[in-house]
Amino acid sequence: MSITIRTATDSDWPAVWPFMRDIIRAGETYTYDRDLDEGQARSTWFLPPPAHTVVAVDASGAVVGTAKTNPNHMGGASHIASASFMVDAARAGRGVGRALGEYVIEWARAEGYRAIQFNAVVETNTRAVRLWRSLGFEIMTTLPEGFRHPEHGYVGLHIMYRRL
Amino acid sequence: MSITIRTATDSDWPAVWPFMRDIIRAGETYTYDRDLDEGQARSTWFLPPPAHTVVAVDASGAVVGTAKTNPNHMGGASHIASASFMVDAARAGRGVGRALGEYVIEWARAEGYRAIQFNAVVETNTRAVRLWRSLGFEIMTTLPEGFRHPEHGYVGLHIMYRRL
Repeated sequence: MSITIRTATDSDWPAVWPFMRDIIRAGETYTYDRDLDEGQARSTWFLPPPAHTVVAVDASGAVVGTAKTNPNHMGGASHIASASFMVDAARAGRGVGRALGEYVIEWARAEGYRAIQFNAVVETNTRAVRLWRSLGFEIMTTLPEGFRHPEHGYVGLHIMYRRL
Repeated sequence: MSITIRTATDSDWPAVWPFMRDIIRAGETYTYDRDLDEGQARSTWFLPPPAHTVVAVDASGAVVGTAKTNPNHMGGASHIASASFMVDAARAGRGVGRALGEYVIEWARAEGYRAIQFNAVVETNTRAVRLWRSLGFEIMTTLPEGFRHPEHGYVGLHIMYRRL
């Protein structure tokens, strides 16, 4: 699948929300309130600069994934970026997440960030953990029982980090 | 020094801001922008519920420190609290930080939180690290070069955690 990454615009939101909604409602991989409404989700994801939101588009022009990145800390730690990713479940496993991850690493480096920190990677989200490790992210620690999974109960929450 | 901890009110702000300002301007221990203005600082520290802000008051009624605590994550990780502390440098070393820490641990436990996570403890802030360890917090990881200290350059940034 040929994937293009481009900056998100307001007109992309209607294509993003359906798969984002499914991910949020499932409550298995993200630390968002499961009943987050569309307006809250939009204002969480489509942030003003210095945040940066992109979409992944397939050859037909369909939006198949999205990423946002923003400073993880302020002040003396503002050189650490954060990033979040969502891929349409119907298109998973076709390199969309990897393309978004590679893009964000390059973007953050070009912006002058010195590292990317993921604050909350659910340990049962093994596909994501494997992908981030393959892109050079390290599990720095796992918060024990840090996440309450709707099916598995309390599971670990990884903090992952990659220097740029 | 006899210390009382009580919920902060708007009328406490003028007593909090002078020592908070000094700590923020120094830029050695907190990941705030060093030029944060008073309004930004106030809205960062005096948050609506479920956040909770307290002040430490000495026997004369003077405000000598403050703490705020709030959920560290949302959704499936909302059982992890965050907490931040500031003590008037002129009153440091007299148990104010410890009294605030003990209060916050009890408060978070009573609120139903299952853990407290500190996201960013600067490794050169050895007095704070020692205090948190003595109160049962563990250094889960240290982000290498996670903090740019105005004097020491890039130093590590601890993530500390205590189960309740």
